[in-house]
Amino acid sequence: MVDRLSYAMIGGGIGAFIGEVHRRAISLDDRATLVAGALSSTPEKSKQSAAQLGLDPDRSYGSYEELFERESARDDRVDFVSIVTPNDTHYPIAKMALKHGFHVVLDKPATHTSEQANELASIAESNGLVCCVTYNYTGYPMVRQARAMIAAGELGTIRKVYAEYHQGWLASDLEVSGQKQAAWRVDPKRAGLGGALGDIGTHAENLLAFVTGLEIQTLHANLNSFVPGRALDDDASVMMQFTNGAHGVLTASQICIGEGNGLTLRVHGDRGSLWWRQESPDELRVALLDQNPVIYSRGGAGLHDDAAISARIPQGHPEGYLEAFGNIYKGAIDAIFAKRDGHEPSRLAQLIPSIVDGERGVRFVERCVQSAKKNAQLDWA
Amino acid sequence: MVDRLSYAMIGGGIGAFIGEVHRRAISLDDRATLVAGALSSTPEKSKQSAAQLGLDPDRSYGSYEELFERESARDDRVDFVSIVTPNDTHYPIAKMALKHGFHVVLDKPATHTSEQANELASIAESNGLVCCVTYNYTGYPMVRQARAMIAAGELGTIRKVYAEYHQGWLASDLEVSGQKQAAWRVDPKRAGLGGALGDIGTHAENLLAFVTGLEIQTLHANLNSFVPGRALDDDASVMMQFTNGAHGVLTASQICIGEGNGLTLRVHGDRGSLWWRQESPDELRVALLDQNPVIYSRGGAGLHDDAAISARIPQGHPEGYLEAFGNIYKGAIDAIFAKRDGHEPSRLAQLIPSIVDGERGVRFVERCVQSAKKNAQLDWA
Amino acid sequence: MVDRLSYAMIGGGIGAFIGEVHRRAISLDDRATLVAGALSSTPEKSKQSAAQLGLDPDRSYGSYEELFERESARDDRVDFVSIVTPNDTHYPIAKMALKHGFHVVLDKPATHTSEQANELASIAESNGLVCCVTYNYTGYPMVRQARAMIAAGELGTIRKVYAEYHQGWLASDLEVSGQKQAAWRVDPKRAGLGGALGDIGTHAENLLAFVTGLEIQTLHANLNSFVPGRALDDDASVMMQFTNGAHGVLTASQICIGEGNGLTLRVHGDRGSLWWRQESPDELRVALLDQNPVIYSRGGAGLHDDAAISARIPQGHPEGYLEAFGNIYKGAIDAIFAKRDGHEPSRLAQLIPSIVDGERGVRFVERCVQSAKKNAQLDWA
Amino acid sequence: MVDRLSYAMIGGGIGAFIGEVHRRAISLDDRATLVAGALSSTPEKSKQSAAQLGLDPDRSYGSYEELFERESARDDRVDFVSIVTPNDTHYPIAKMALKHGFHVVLDKPATHTSEQANELASIAESNGLVCCVTYNYTGYPMVRQARAMIAAGELGTIRKVYAEYHQGWLASDLEVSGQKQAAWRVDPKRAGLGGALGDIGTHAENLLAFVTGLEIQTLHANLNSFVPGRALDDDASVMMQFTNGAHGVLTASQICIGEGNGLTLRVHGDRGSLWWRQESPDELRVALLDQNPVIYSRGGAGLHDDAAISARIPQGHPEGYLEAFGNIYKGAIDAIFAKRDGHEPSRLAQLIPSIVDGERGVRFVERCVQSAKKNAQLDWA
Repeated sequence: MVDRLSYAMIGGGIGAFIGEVHRRAISLDDRATLVAGALSSTPEKSKQSAAQLGLDPDRSYGSYEELFERESARDDRVDFVSIVTPNDTHYPIAKMALKHGFHVVLDKPATHTSEQANELASIAESNGLVCCVTYNYTGYPMVRQARAMIAAGELGTIRKVYAEYHQGWLASDLEVSGQKQAAWRVDPKRAGLGGALGDIGTHAENLLAFVTGLEIQTLHANLNSFVPGRALDDDASVMMQFTNGAHGVLTASQICIGEGNGLTLRVHGDRGSLWWRQESPDELRVALLDQNPVIYSRGGAGLHDDAAISARIPQGHPEGYLEAFGNIYKGAIDAIFAKRDGHEPSRLAQLIPSIVDGERGVRFVERCVQSAKKNAQLDWA
Repeated sequence: MVDRLSYAMIGGGIGAFIGEVHRRAISLDDRATLVAGALSSTPEKSKQSAAQLGLDPDRSYGSYEELFERESARDDRVDFVSIVTPNDTHYPIAKMALKHGFHVVLDKPATHTSEQANELASIAESNGLVCCVTYNYTGYPMVRQARAMIAAGELGTIRKVYAEYHQGWLASDLEVSGQKQAAWRVDPKRAGLGGALGDIGTHAENLLAFVTGLEIQTLHANLNSFVPGRALDDDASVMMQFTNGAHGVLTASQICIGEGNGLTLRVHGDRGSLWWRQESPDELRVALLDQNPVIYSRGGAGLHDDAAISARIPQGHPEGYLEAFGNIYKGAIDAIFAKRDGHEPSRLAQLIPSIVDGERGVRFVERCVQSAKKNAQLDWA
Repeated sequence: MVDRLSYAMIGGGIGAFIGEVHRRAISLDDRATLVAGALSSTPEKSKQSAAQLGLDPDRSYGSYEELFERESARDDRVDFVSIVTPNDTHYPIAKMALKHGFHVVLDKPATHTSEQANELASIAESNGLVCCVTYNYTGYPMVRQARAMIAAGELGTIRKVYAEYHQGWLASDLEVSGQKQAAWRVDPKRAGLGGALGDIGTHAENLLAFVTGLEIQTLHANLNSFVPGRALDDDASVMMQFTNGAHGVLTASQICIGEGNGLTLRVHGDRGSLWWRQESPDELRVALLDQNPVIYSRGGAGLHDDAAISARIPQGHPEGYLEAFGNIYKGAIDAIFAKRDGHEPSRLAQLIPSIVDGERGVRFVERCVQSAKKNAQLDWA
Repeated sequence: MVDRLSYAMIGGGIGAFIGEVHRRAISLDDRATLVAGALSSTPEKSKQSAAQLGLDPDRSYGSYEELFERESARDDRVDFVSIVTPNDTHYPIAKMALKHGFHVVLDKPATHTSEQANELASIAESNGLVCCVTYNYTGYPMVRQARAMIAAGELGTIRKVYAEYHQGWLASDLEVSGQKQAAWRVDPKRAGLGGALGDIGTHAENLLAFVTGLEIQTLHANLNSFVPGRALDDDASVMMQFTNGAHGVLTASQICIGEGNGLTLRVHGDRGSLWWRQESPDELRVALLDQNPVIYSRGGAGLHDDAAISARIPQGHPEGYLEAFGNIYKGAIDAIFAKRDGHEPSRLAQLIPSIVDGERGVRFVERCVQSAKKNAQLDWA
């Protein structure tokens, strides 16, 4: 018999974007079943959404509080909860989930403040629970190849890193038209301190940290709100010094007309360099000193295990965003099985972003906002 | 309540490639559940595979004959069967499935001979059953955009078409090493008349026909077996005249070292041209007479409905092979619901490749093999 | 003192395209000076063109006959002549030049018939003269790298070759509007037997032969005239068998809207493959069996001498069409110096296309036209 | 008769790189002749270099002082001088040239200090002389197209600019091996205040200013010397605020292994965006709000005059670095003719970078170095 988990989703009802992404990402490998939910912000809408998804009405809850209370009481209580609500509610929901002993998969940014994230980390730690934050871009096989190559010293000492995340969809005041995805992202109450910075800049920070392992020592950020009427940044630029002496430039912007989902990473070491583009995720360009550039690819030659185990289909058959997202869930589910069964977590489980990464992401936003306000370089710690 | 279908799979057991692809493609949208199977070539292996997939042992059958007999007798018999066995068994399995009243989704090439495919088409037709052949590349949104633009006359009258499908994985004698995927593809008994031609050339033919609607009038094919010891072609080139006066060149080869899954289509009309590459499937380059080339993309501007409804996530978030494959299944499941419920099939259902397309693909292989033997141009009909 | 040659140009007056290209290509390295000319089709226009170019009026001739007669009589007669007239006049002009003892650089296609080209080759041979045909694309450094890699066996035995030359500028009836470049190319009297085939197909044939060294054994061609009113082909497709057992597909078309000057070459051997695109000429993609693809580039690592000596500026500083054309002239001028001074020709001189290549190009057009008429495969010899 | 200018070169002797580039750039259009020179740092080497270039020994001078003195005395004195010496000598040579009434074409960076550049600007102005600084990348047709589109308001108000110039050739300590190009660039005495910043960062600054017309209001720079032993930066990052409210990020680095000559520009306005890469210079990607991206190209549709007049050959026939460099000289020569003959300068002449641009470039280096030392944001003025 196949061993499967069951899960509940909080948020992700009708009209939501990321909830459906999470469900598809889980479906892809078919090792967990959605059986419960508090899917929308009102009980009525939650019921409607639950019906659409075919949930048992008994396990369609009107609020997350109700969900945790009643699921806790069941013998067949869900194994984990996926939290895909707007940013402002992440903290109370995740906290209650962890306190009730549920494993958590949490959309990013983890929380509004780094203290909140720290607290979640402590609770998860002391309760022996998985708390995964879905920095999904680290699920791409070639991102994992990049990380493994750097970890193995193939690029030598890292000197310079460029991380970019450029989108164009908020170049005009879409929020005024009532577009739901735009509206909450530009609202400080729901989005938190960061606009583009929090929404996509944290992905770039996480990707950079995941691949290079570098730690920020100081940073200087510049934030702009180009579209009139915005309280939060829609454009961010950050110069960073890392503890090993490397330097980095990270830019995140949502006003770059013509950019779809332009997340890129370039890493330059003293022995070699690499380039990766999210919009062409199956390729990784690598150049070693005095050699011609080589194109690594998913399914190609010279792959480290971490890349090989993260692929599903052969070379040349494109994998995309959902497959990478699925890899995060595969790892999280592996991690939950390992906790449940008391065995060592699989390699996929070891690769998932945790609430510790989530805390670092929130701190990154906090520090950038402080730096931009003072227009000065700040220490990380 | 969500309305779901149930299905059985024939083939696709341990060690198979395409069976897992079909299952994932279905899982992605989660509207059908695998509940039965005759998964491998022996009853023992079938049981093992079924256990791995979590099938009810009662519905894990030792042969397809047993499956059809026993499923037919159940009240909760499966709605459709996915047939993902090697080519030589497609015909008898599909025929028996259709005769027992099951809808069929059949891997390509449909059958060994065009007569067999014709027969399947007749049975499906008279029994009112869906018989979909998984020419999966037509599931890509930008392929559907290309088709819609041409159908709308945006490129004018088509003059010249280039369809290519170049792979490199059979450039050496992989079959000798016992690689399972290679072994059956180079074996005339299992693969049929065509090697590269049948395995991938038919995809190129189908893509060309789907996008342009052109009909072949005459063709002249050249077939080579470059790797010593091969009975079937591993390289094919075809020049074609179409009934509208257009000309085409189609090449399919599995000895192109460095090519992963290089399926491309270029169409030149008297008002404009388009270019599409499977390895970068989210983009479609279009150039109209005396204008600069424009990059259409999934989620971008100017999309026809057929493209828009075939996408799941926003622009810049790559979709890939599984998502395109999933679109075929989405359409097939829609088509089956429409048959069951007696309503009009959805647009997605109308876009799926049928056994009629499958018949044309088999005939294409037959004609090419005849032409190559005679080293002469042949008529299509 | 720098040793320089002097040359005359025949054709290339006001309004011509290719004459100016030749002059610039020579200027780039500044080792030959234009001192005489019969630049246009009438004496008056020739004078005007000569004045514009600053020629001594004494050496501005009304016809090529006059030029050869009077230049022959001078002590400071020109060292060589560049012949850049429409195709139909190549033969008589080149023949007279060679008979008067002038070295010749001749635009392609060399002549109207292969017999004519053979005759030129004989005269050049017996008179000890250089007769270079400007198949300029072989001047690109990375084309020479491709040739050297194949010659060194790095790709193993060649199995399949794709040569394409696709343009879009003749997709509509530009000739009707009086556009001079279009008008002569579609006129059988001036262009010869081939339209697209002669104008650009011969470049593709030459590139293929230069890089691979393969010899055509049989060919089957299809020719189309898509634009109404054209007597010559504007679209050509050719399947070829080579004497070593390899197979090739060559297509040349001028009706591909959206293509600028799309000359590409792909070569697949049993040990590796290469890809080259004229519109991105500084790069050469190479993939060896079971290895990741590598990007060679002008100025990069791993270059053979033939590539290295054909570059002028460092890596990343693009060279283009004129620089490649200049390499043909550099070689031709080297070859002329070698003849004059009785020393061994330089390596650059050895790489230039000769009238023997020119003859093969004309024969290619002849054979393709015959094959297309018969709609049958023909032997080369 | 063709009207030609004569010129002298200072620097650019045996073993130099950029001198030969200047000479080839001039040769390409063949409107000026090199007739005099002080080509090397010693009289002996100068004579040798002059002999190699075929200069009249009478006009091969041992020093620039001698050149100006003796050329001034001639009736046929040169029209202009090209100064291609290491940076430290630009100022005295250019000053003396202008004082003797010679037009000047000066390699970048113009001088060591902005005061020096200002002084040269004054002398040129009061003497009615052309003083062009060869920011050659502004000579590319598609760069001029980008400028014209922005000037015409096609992108709306500019919000964000990314300018990058990344090379890899100084990633290791090439200067230690005695490589001449490396040695002077890392030597503060000869190179000036900036390493990568002065050598290539100024090109990026100039490109940005030329295309966008934006003026820097404040900047914050970070400079690194990654290769041990270097006194000057080999890596620079700059965040800039412009007077119109736009923000910019400029990075210049010579330690990016795998980068050849990676100069790129991305400009984002409130109505559209553009992207340009020097290594693929014939293309310009443009995206307008809510429209699909369009590929403009040299010779393609929709070009402004400034782009059209800067091209020499048709679309698809690549032009490169030398052609762009040649456009600067074409403009400079036009400007000199206009001065000489008292007519309005041509459009090409109006597009050339002047000593005023040169001064801004030097000031940019000064300000960045000051900012990096203080680790603080500085005002431009």
